Amino acid sequence: MASVDTSELGIVVVGTGMMGTDHLRRIPQSIAGARVVTVVDADSARAAAAVKLAPGARTAASLTEALSHGDVGGVLIATPGDSHHALVLEALEARIPVLCEKPLTTDAATSRLIVEAEVAAGQRLIQVGFMRRFDKQFLEVKNAIRDGGLGSALVGRFVHRLDVAPPRFTEADLIPEAVVHEFDTARWLFDDEIESVEVLKPRANAHATQQLAGPQLIVIRLAAGGIVVVDANMDSHYGYEVSGEITLEKGTVEFGRPSGVTYRRSGALTSDVTPDYRARFVDAYNAEIQAFVDGVRDGHLPGPSAWDGYVATVVVDAGVAAQQSGKVETVSLPDKPAFYAE
Amino acid sequence: MASVDTSELGIVVVGTGMMGTDHLRRIPQSIAGARVVTVVDADSARAAAAVKLAPGARTAASLTEALSHGDVGGVLIATPGDSHHALVLEALEARIPVLCEKPLTTDAATSRLIVEAEVAAGQRLIQVGFMRRFDKQFLEVKNAIRDGGLGSALVGRFVHRLDVAPPRFTEADLIPEAVVHEFDTARWLFDDEIESVEVLKPRANAHATQQLAGPQLIVIRLAAGGIVVVDANMDSHYGYEVSGEITLEKGTVEFGRPSGVTYRRSGALTSDVTPDYRARFVDAYNAEIQAFVDGVRDGHLPGPSAWDGYVATVVVDAGVAAQQSGKVETVSLPDKPAFYAE
Amino acid sequence: MASVDTSELGIVVVGTGMMGTDHLRRIPQSIAGARVVTVVDADSARAAAAVKLAPGARTAASLTEALSHGDVGGVLIATPGDSHHALVLEALEARIPVLCEKPLTTDAATSRLIVEAEVAAGQRLIQVGFMRRFDKQFLEVKNAIRDGGLGSALVGRFVHRLDVAPPRFTEADLIPEAVVHEFDTARWLFDDEIESVEVLKPRANAHATQQLAGPQLIVIRLAAGGIVVVDANMDSHYGYEVSGEITLEKGTVEFGRPSGVTYRRSGALTSDVTPDYRARFVDAYNAEIQAFVDGVRDGHLPGPSAWDGYVATVVVDAGVAAQQSGKVETVSLPDKPAFYAE
Amino acid sequence: MASVDTSELGIVVVGTGMMGTDHLRRIPQSIAGARVVTVVDADSARAAAAVKLAPGARTAASLTEALSHGDVGGVLIATPGDSHHALVLEALEARIPVLCEKPLTTDAATSRLIVEAEVAAGQRLIQVGFMRRFDKQFLEVKNAIRDGGLGSALVGRFVHRLDVAPPRFTEADLIPEAVVHEFDTARWLFDDEIESVEVLKPRANAHATQQLAGPQLIVIRLAAGGIVVVDANMDSHYGYEVSGEITLEKGTVEFGRPSGVTYRRSGALTSDVTPDYRARFVDAYNAEIQAFVDGVRDGHLPGPSAWDGYVATVVVDAGVAAQQSGKVETVSLPDKPAFYAE
Repeated sequence: MASVDTSELGIVVVGTGMMGTDHLRRIPQSIAGARVVTVVDADSARAAAAVKLAPGARTAASLTEALSHGDVGGVLIATPGDSHHALVLEALEARIPVLCEKPLTTDAATSRLIVEAEVAAGQRLIQVGFMRRFDKQFLEVKNAIRDGGLGSALVGRFVHRLDVAPPRFTEADLIPEAVVHEFDTARWLFDDEIESVEVLKPRANAHATQQLAGPQLIVIRLAAGGIVVVDANMDSHYGYEVSGEITLEKGTVEFGRPSGVTYRRSGALTSDVTPDYRARFVDAYNAEIQAFVDGVRDGHLPGPSAWDGYVATVVVDAGVAAQQSGKVETVSLPDKPAFYAE
Repeated sequence: MASVDTSELGIVVVGTGMMGTDHLRRIPQSIAGARVVTVVDADSARAAAAVKLAPGARTAASLTEALSHGDVGGVLIATPGDSHHALVLEALEARIPVLCEKPLTTDAATSRLIVEAEVAAGQRLIQVGFMRRFDKQFLEVKNAIRDGGLGSALVGRFVHRLDVAPPRFTEADLIPEAVVHEFDTARWLFDDEIESVEVLKPRANAHATQQLAGPQLIVIRLAAGGIVVVDANMDSHYGYEVSGEITLEKGTVEFGRPSGVTYRRSGALTSDVTPDYRARFVDAYNAEIQAFVDGVRDGHLPGPSAWDGYVATVVVDAGVAAQQSGKVETVSLPDKPAFYAE
Repeated sequence: MASVDTSELGIVVVGTGMMGTDHLRRIPQSIAGARVVTVVDADSARAAAAVKLAPGARTAASLTEALSHGDVGGVLIATPGDSHHALVLEALEARIPVLCEKPLTTDAATSRLIVEAEVAAGQRLIQVGFMRRFDKQFLEVKNAIRDGGLGSALVGRFVHRLDVAPPRFTEADLIPEAVVHEFDTARWLFDDEIESVEVLKPRANAHATQQLAGPQLIVIRLAAGGIVVVDANMDSHYGYEVSGEITLEKGTVEFGRPSGVTYRRSGALTSDVTPDYRARFVDAYNAEIQAFVDGVRDGHLPGPSAWDGYVATVVVDAGVAAQQSGKVETVSLPDKPAFYAE
Repeated sequence: MASVDTSELGIVVVGTGMMGTDHLRRIPQSIAGARVVTVVDADSARAAAAVKLAPGARTAASLTEALSHGDVGGVLIATPGDSHHALVLEALEARIPVLCEKPLTTDAATSRLIVEAEVAAGQRLIQVGFMRRFDKQFLEVKNAIRDGGLGSALVGRFVHRLDVAPPRFTEADLIPEAVVHEFDTARWLFDDEIESVEVLKPRANAHATQQLAGPQLIVIRLAAGGIVVVDANMDSHYGYEVSGEITLEKGTVEFGRPSGVTYRRSGALTSDVTPDYRARFVDAYNAEIQAFVDGVRDGHLPGPSAWDGYVATVVVDAGVAAQQSGKVETVSLPDKPAFYAE
């Protein structure tokens, strides 16, 4: 095989859990113009195992060590959320663009510090991993709303379902782990901020994962009066589904409905539902990482921004409070810095 | 044409508005074993015009006059709601089975009097016109839930949309005219009573009929913990749709999604949506009237019963209160008489 | 129960097999303005059993006996095809309108004699039981083509599938028993006559009913150049489906695609397929019989006519020849009598 | 932006028409581990314009010139078909892997020479651009058939439709330009060789592109008895659609049905159909090129092979003959070299 020397974006991947290894596989297989240069994990055995997915990359015990090499063009943070704050700040200080998996941080205070640091840096360096914004159908919905032909968006009815909740998943995880995506989606599609969150709890599902009673309905009220109701069900027992319908003034837009190859067999018409988010959003993840790489090259990082990550954290706080109080919990946000105006 | 003498059920149709004339057309065209014997309208010109739809029938100025003839086997009441109380009681006293279009009466007190009168009569003589219970897909959903294979019903997401609201329709009509159907459907499908109603109001639709701001979301909580959210939109501006999805413990059941002949033209796959409830529910109306006729003949009137009509009235009161108060309004019901046990 | 004397159309049902008993049930349950007066079966025990489905009817050993009563307004012939010729002629002579299940007769010569007899009688008295012409979706397709907005019909792709072929069904039955419906549908939808038929035989289905190798593809060429390909599969092993797509000059129309309540369960989106033609076409059968009853009353029998029944017989002969020869077999028809012009 | 030196596969793109420029855009935007090193076009102005799509690439007037540089890992041939023979042979001689857009060559004789040359070279160096084999739904169908759970494939009903045929497209182009894809798909999905081709011509479409009468039906018979009927319609006037249904012994598999975001507006449920093959198959093209790049790196080029390209050419000859003769034209193939056994 003949080969050439050329310039690809050098990526550091921090974290070797499921998301991290997915990205390690993804970059050499599916991303144009980038290569993994360093895999970071404090556990050297894990790092050594993971680096096999990215031929030519080295391992490092810390982001600091990874940044000490001169070949870093971007950082992907895929560690547990409580480490994000320090990692993002470190990348910021080094002026290295960073794609941080959600959440930006695990609390509003630290997320706000990051926003302030990025504003102070005077340069957009942070993209937050709300991959749905890169999904084809979500993008078509966004365009259909922006187009304006059907008028303003009034109501959203969203569905977020897992086949079976992960083993340790509890009710306390529902809002920060799952519904946070709908918070971002609602803000993005309605082009508006969330004013309040309320959580309705239907009767328990006898087959739900322990410590997770069953589906919950999250009512999101937006500043201009839009209302989104999220049907969040981590134990649907049929598969993974992220779908919804937006009611506009002159019609509706429905997205994410499972479709595909249709079997006629055994008395029924049948289409498989994707089993999990990785199968459902594989193309969105690819597009997200590609957009990050392209954005770094072009000097224009795409959204979602650190501001979006910060707001999500604030809304999650309200959502968790609402889940506990049973009441409508108000979301309080500072003014959006002009820095983040589009 | 040869003809035979035989015995058909003689039906009195009271009221010659849209529903009344629909039934006048329906019976000779589509109902087996019945004929219209008398068309009742106090306005003799209207009665004379309407009776042309039912060959062989006579007109009468009142139900009293209609019942004076000996050929009455059943009464269909299709007058405005405020006349129902007196009409139903008159039929009850005459021991003539009656199919009363919803609402049974316009207030809970009079509806309860009717329930008490029927219990006192000791015989099921009243069927209330919740025609959805005779729709094929609704029946399939009812059977799927009753079957139990997917576990208990936890959540309902219902859609009730009109293309354009009728001219004089106001926000005050939304609950008693439209959402009353969802109250009955929720009770029937979940086999449970409603405990409370709440109404959420999204931003206004600039294209809505005057005095009807736009869609409203009605949250129905049932005794066993089921929650139903109704997306009621009288100005959808695309067509008539009554659909929904029930989440059970092991899967979901979706019904009423528009389907039918599919056109490929002008860059799109397209299926027509029915324009109004008459087109959407024509088969359900036929089945409802046929079930009434068959039930009278067999001596077993099918549901929905006077009790169902009464409960709907009580829940409508709570819904109207919730629409005004913005709060969760509790539904308070007496014990269900054993007479109505199935 | 009060009752009235009035005039219903008296129907004689000849034959007490599956179709005959279906009609015996259907008329009292679902047909307005008609009643069964006589059930005809030469086997008196069968007649006695069947008559229980039609309260008030009598039995007779022959159509002759049934017609001897003065109460006959119409005759439904649901006997095996080889008896149709004599029965239809007898009804014709008595000037009693007849709805004859397909086939009109089992050979072209006798069918033509019936056409000639009806022309000689000078009055449309025969309706042939191609019930698809009364199916809602077929009617919508017919209207869409007639409307002309998409131009002329060029190609049809039809599907006719059974779950499992009836026990004694052989390859020789495929054309006269099943594909005869597509012959009529093609003529009706394309508003044209069939010029030739060809039968293509794919590899055998190892699971097919004995003596029926598997699916066959029937190529129908119409006079104006339209071509219809029928995928006839009596052993689909998944359910009953009658569907298709018509390509017009500016788009296509697709019909009969299974749809309905959709389940999400066990990793898939699922809709049940109807198990057999009775479930699939129950509404069409009801509409067909109702149209016959209404047509007799109004003096205008609806199609399909004796001419349509005759042509179907001629095309079936060509189809059977094509099935045996492997060649394109031409259909030769006399001029259509002006009597049948619409 | 930091950058790294690393090894990417150097690609020569030959041809700067629509396919060539699509690939020139695609590689830097979407393909991992590859870069365009040279853009070849004899017209230096065209080459100069096209090379702007691939930063860092040079231009060349010929493949010979391009190969004179030492950085070539693979060649993409996207020139008109009549130049393929010489180009592929040149790459073969240089032992450079080549992805050749269909057709492999424009006649069977030269395609066979290429097969023989590759066999002589003793190494799989040629991939032919039947991109459908990389489409997700096609792959799912392939897997469903291979899985065997529904038995053997018996019948295929394929649809291949363009919105409007390209300006100079004539009837003579239908088989080699469009239906050639179905020839490859039929062989691949049925895992069988084609025995004969027949072309049925329905009535003309008054709105068809000049010199292309309208849809044609291509009947493909496979060795084991499978039959595929292709509905090829270059003037569908509604959009681009490549879809189909395979009938197996115990059910069917349907693929390519347009689906996606669903709008409810103006009285209808509507989903957009993709306008052309580039929109429909963008992911398949990406996967095809990525598979070529990965295959070159791994030393195992994926199918479709030169043999598949050769066979397609032979079948196209039969198809063109069938289109002219109106008869069933037999396909005659030499034995498949063991070299191509999988």
